[in-house]
Formats: sequence, structure tokens, C-alpha cells
Amino acid sequence: MQAEIVTIGTELLLGEIVDTNSAWIAQRLTTIGLNMFYTTTVGDNLTRIADVLRAALERSDVVITTGGLGPTVDDMTREAVAIATGRELVLDEDLVQEIACFFSRRNAQMTDNNRKQACLPAGARIIHNPVGTAPSFAVEHNEHVIISLPGVPHEMRHLMENEVLPYLRQRFDLQGIIKSRVLRTCGIGESVLGAQIDDLMQLSNPTVGTAAHPGQTDVRITVKAASEAEADTMIAPVERQIRERVGEYIFGVDQQTLSDVLIGLIAEHGLRLATAESSTRGELARQLGDAAKGRPAFAGGVVALDAETLQRSLGLSTQEIGQSYPNQEIADAAARAACRLYGADLGLAVIGPADLTIPDAPPVYFSLATSDAVIAAPPRKGRSDPAGRGWLIHLAMDLARRQLQGLPIR
Amino acid sequence: MQAEIVTIGTELLLGEIVDTNSAWIAQRLTTIGLNMFYTTTVGDNLTRIADVLRAALERSDVVITTGGLGPTVDDMTREAVAIATGRELVLDEDLVQEIACFFSRRNAQMTDNNRKQACLPAGARIIHNPVGTAPSFAVEHNEHVIISLPGVPHEMRHLMENEVLPYLRQRFDLQGIIKSRVLRTCGIGESVLGAQIDDLMQLSNPTVGTAAHPGQTDVRITVKAASEAEADTMIAPVERQIRERVGEYIFGVDQQTLSDVLIGLIAEHGLRLATAESSTRGELARQLGDAAKGRPAFAGGVVALDAETLQRSLGLSTQEIGQSYPNQEIADAAARAACRLYGADLGLAVIGPADLTIPDAPPVYFSLATSDAVIAAPPRKGRSDPAGRGWLIHLAMDLARRQLQGLPIR
Repeated sequence: MQAEIVTIGTELLLGEIVDTNSAWIAQRLTTIGLNMFYTTTVGDNLTRIADVLRAALERSDVVITTGGLGPTVDDMTREAVAIATGRELVLDEDLVQEIACFFSRRNAQMTDNNRKQACLPAGARIIHNPVGTAPSFAVEHNEHVIISLPGVPHEMRHLMENEVLPYLRQRFDLQGIIKSRVLRTCGIGESVLGAQIDDLMQLSNPTVGTAAHPGQTDVRITVKAASEAEADTMIAPVERQIRERVGEYIFGVDQQTLSDVLIGLIAEHGLRLATAESSTRGELARQLGDAAKGRPAFAGGVVALDAETLQRSLGLSTQEIGQSYPNQEIADAAARAACRLYGADLGLAVIGPADLTIPDAPPVYFSLATSDAVIAAPPRKGRSDPAGRGWLIHLAMDLARRQLQGLPIR
Repeated sequence: MQAEIVTIGTELLLGEIVDTNSAWIAQRLTTIGLNMFYTTTVGDNLTRIADVLRAALERSDVVITTGGLGPTVDDMTREAVAIATGRELVLDEDLVQEIACFFSRRNAQMTDNNRKQACLPAGARIIHNPVGTAPSFAVEHNEHVIISLPGVPHEMRHLMENEVLPYLRQRFDLQGIIKSRVLRTCGIGESVLGAQIDDLMQLSNPTVGTAAHPGQTDVRITVKAASEAEADTMIAPVERQIRERVGEYIFGVDQQTLSDVLIGLIAEHGLRLATAESSTRGELARQLGDAAKGRPAFAGGVVALDAETLQRSLGLSTQEIGQSYPNQEIADAAARAACRLYGADLGLAVIGPADLTIPDAPPVYFSLATSDAVIAAPPRKGRSDPAGRGWLIHLAMDLARRQLQGLPIR
């Protein structure tokens, strides 16, 4: 069974939007046993889109398209699928109603352009889109199937997980599975970690591989098996060996993020955390706030970009802010002040230069205040790129994780 | 003149490496007047690569490939080009010497695998690669040309700039250029905007297209012209017409972001801004902090996820926080308090439920405090997805932009 992806849009072709969809779709399709052979990107031109779709439908059992389902004249996927499969476009009145409801729920106005979105190739199977206005659909053609999804990543992902993958499994009676288990680590580099599990990385089924992300190294165990149960049985002993060797660095598995795990730990302990940050500019608060999803484990945080605003916003004394900024004492004072200001049990501070691009910028300091202690992690030289920020945030969160799990601080 | 790109590698297909090459190549090719119609990614399989190349060479004048030129068994581009163009692979002894020199300069050992890299399709024009070991080459076939470049971005870019673009200009006697101008709008939906400029979207040169992003709709004007000056002359009247119709919604052009524009405006006025946010959880502060890059225009901000922490962290009175949360009065008080707390001139508040996933969650309120007034934008029903947050942040920043530019608040 062979699948391919067609991404549609001139802005993709010219790189004005970075295509994150096709890699994600490819990975999800391989988990249900479909082989990925091609990805094609084509601009907003009806003839060329139709040509690409026709060729794709000839050589592949499953074709997934993304993009071109919007309301404007340069959204041509519906028409291109109709041409490629030799069908008429038909207005679906139910779909018009659905789109009208979507707009009225948002107190927004539906235009004639939006009616165009309800014109689908005759005989298309509608894939209802509860998270957006772009109706998606599947068309079967000569035993093959083409599925058109929106280009907006969160809409596409929702539809893939909830509609497309179950449909494909059933339609093509897909049995064998590929399953992955990912162990997520923080505080250990990819090469050091790789050296610890070198022998396991030589296995063929399951395979073991590593991947580095900002502040995080993943170990992926991947198995081909007849069933979920068999896959789990094959993965378990390998996972056990990895945990015996590098267990304290493993903060979570699969889709868990360090912020999810940390918020979970704080909630388990019935505590609340507040933050104070400078170099990370609000990203630490955002990640913890997202993980907390409105639960009280994260109270909030202060973002302050220099010594003066840090002092004002946290109500630090002149003595606490001292003469030189930044340093460990200010980070400790900021962690304590965040607790006080928000009435929280834990205060986590990441204090360093607001602008990390300056040559010879001073290091970034980490501090965690609890009810009876203030714990520091080693200061680090910050980097200004997004990956560098991700690394700082992971180091800060891992300080709190290790403290709550009773592990040594490194 | 029509061009396309084929990127080769299973790791690209599955997204283990993110392809940054094809967008870069596409942009460079369009500047010399080649039209980009397709990008295809294909895995490391000889038959499939050859099939893709054959189809590409049939429909496009210029085909650029990246990747698959390394020394290992899964590097198949040389052989695939030979098959697609009906040629033999021939060992080029000069090239062997060149590769040997590259290795000896680095005190590294050349292997038999590296000799394989010197086997090129008969009649290929060698493109010497001073920055790596992967020899690149061009093959002319039925008046079309295929050019194979390495996948390593810095090698590929060096060869494109210094060898490929000059060669293509000369070979195809290319005179004209393609130029784009992007107008970035906030506060107007894609379909409403599209309806305002429907007639302009029917033009053929320049073309006008729209693209929706969270909280932002782009209008792209693209022109084919003989020179930069002619391109600008052709773009100007179309841009003027668009600005006449929807000018107040246009916050910037080309690569500008709303946060960049807003921070620029604040800096121009010699002001400083502070934020208070709940629903957006720190993302507003992060975007403004990133745009400010350490400049004083952004002082910092408070993230508070419920009424109590909002009251504590901003020092609001019990009267100010009132009985019901959220509402416009609290947002106004938060905007004023942010000013006070950070000693800033402007306070921008986005106040609403911390958890937007709750059904029937109350709306999100926006407020901007200046030295002599507090200005509200209409409250909006928030959405919990990342795009929904991007939308709230854009609405908040656009409130401040409109105020600083003396435009009506909508």
C-alpha cells in the first residue's frame, strides 16, 4: 500500500510558509503501515494541480492533499480534484448550513465566497471539520482514494487523527502496525546519551535511535509487530534497559513535554508555582500556562527585561537588586519574590541579560524558591536563537522537576 | 521559462530533516525570471527517482535536484540522472584527482566510495565544488537542462550563487525578473478582504493573491518585469488601489510583523510599553520582547491566570477587581496598573479566561492605557488553539498600533 502527499499553494512553493504538514502526515501514515514515496508541492494553478493529482492517483493508493480549500479565487483544490477524477462540482446545501453555523457562533459574517467552499466533487465523502470553516472530503477513484485536507496545521491534524486514519485503516483493511515509544530526556547531550546505549542502537527490531531538540534529547524505540500487544511486549525490555542506564534524565514519554510533566508534579503535590524571567521574555510563563490549562498549579509570572523593571515589578529592595546585574543572589531574590507576589508555594526564576545577542553577555542564573529553601542550578551562557531559549527553559523546568522528584540537582 | 525542484532523500520525505533548500532555490530562481511550478520530494529509490526526473525534464525547462550526491549506497542521484537522460555513467579521472586533493588538504583519507562520486552521466558539465566533496553537474537533454546539487545547504547555496544562476542566465538568455510585494493586514478576514479587491485579484500581471494567517491576512502583488525599476512601476498603482480600499488595516509590508511594527512605533514616539495578560499566558510579552530585542520600548509584563493572582501581582484594589471576572473594567484597571508597575507610558492588557477550552467561556477584553486615556477594543470570544491565541495577540497589538497611528479603533 503506497501513499503520497500533495501540498498546494504558491506561498509554500516559494517558501513563504514553511510546510510542516507533509512530514507530520508522512509519519502518521507510516504508523498504519502505508509506505510514503513522494511529496509534491504545486502552486495555485488549476491545470497544474489537476495534472499532479492525476499522476498521483495513478501511482499511489492513497493521496493526501493539504491546502487550497479556503474561500478565495486562488483556492482551487476542490475544482482540481473534480477535474482529476472526471467529476462535476456540486453545491452541498447541508455543508452551506454547517459553514453558516460556524460563522454565526463566532458572530462573523458569511460571504458568497464561503458558499464556494461547499462545492465539492460529485460523490465526495464529506469529512466534517468542527475546528474550522474549510470542509474536507475524500473521493474514491479506480480503487484509489484522494483525501483533501485544509493547510492550517491544527485543523489538518485534528481531521487526520479523528477521521482520516480510522477511515484508511478500515477502507484498506490495514493490519500490521509500526509502533514507537519515545523516552524524553533533559540535561544529557545526544552524544553522551548515545554512548550509554550504543549496543541497543545496533538492534534491528525494535530499532533504537536518538534525536536532539533544544534542551531535550529523545530516545525512540520503534517496532514492527502484528498487534499493539506484541509491539508493547517487544518494546518493554529495551525501555527497561535504557531506564536502568539513564533513568534520572528521563522526564517523560511519547508526547509528554517537560512543562506537562512539571505541572503534573506540582498539581500532585497540591502546590502552586509562579515565575520571574528576563532572558526568556515570557516564554517560560507561556509554556507553563499552556501546560496548566487553567489549573491552579501555575499562578502566573513576571517578565522584566532589565534590573530596574525587575526591581519595580517584583517589589525587590535596593539591597536585593544590588550593584551588578545579573547574578545568583538576584535570581534567588526574584524566585522568592515571585512566590510572595502570587501567593505561590514555589517560585522559579530565570534571570539573565534581556538581549543574548550581545557579545560576552553575562550568564543566565536559575533559582527555585520553596517554602524552606532556595535551590540554584549552575548558571549557563545563554544563546539568542529560539533553540537557545528552549534550552534555558528546559534547564529551569528540570531544576523544579528534579527537586520535586527528590533527584540530585545537576 | 519554467523550472522545478526535486529534493532527494528518504529522511526528507519523513521529515527527519527539514527541507530549507527548495524554498531558497525557488526564490533565487524566480528572481532571474524562471517560473516555479513544482517541488517534488522523493525517497532513496533508484526507479522512483529516475521516474520523477524523467517527468520533470519533460514538463520543465530547468530541473534542479538536491541531495543524493554523497558517497554511500543510498546516494543515487548520479545514476538516476543517467537513466532519466539515457546515458552511461562514466568515471571522470580529473574529478577523482580533485576529490583526492580535497581530502589531502583536510588530512583525511579518500575511500573507494568517494571514487563513486566521480562517476557522472556521459557528457555532463561538471560544476566544481570548492566547498565540499560532492561533485555537482549539469546535463542538457532535449533543450532542457537538469542540474544536480548537494543537499548540504551551504554547499548548495555557494554553487547556486556562483555557478548555477550565472550559467542559467546565459544559457537561456534570461532578461526579466519576478518581484513580489506583500501587504500585511490585521483586523479584516480573508473573505471580506477578498471581496474588496476581487477585481484586482483577476489581474494577470501583476497578480494579486491573499493568504490567511492567525490574526493576519496577507495580500501579495507579484509582477514579471524586465527590471527592478519596471517591476516597482507596475506594482505601485495596484498597491495604491489596495491601500485606498483597505489602507487602515495594512500594518506593514514584506517581512514585517505586527510586533516589529508596533515596537517601531513605540520607539519612534520615545515611549515604553508594559503588558498584563491572562488568556494569552505570556505569549504577548514574548512576542513584544522578541521584537524589542533588548530596546527599552518594551519594559515587561505580568502574566496572571485568575482574578486573585491578577489582583495580587498588579496590586489592584478590591474595588478595581470587583465581583465578576473578567470584564472591561478589570482590563482597564490592569492596563493602568501595568503602566504603574513598570513605570511605562503605555499599558496593554488582554484579560479573559485562563482556560479558553471551557464551553461558554466569557469573552476576552482588550485595553490600552495611555498617559491621558484608557481605550478599549471590542471584546472577543477567545479560542484555545494556537491560531486563536495568535489572533488575540494580533488584536491587542493592533489596538495599540491604531492608537499610535491615530486610526479609529475597531
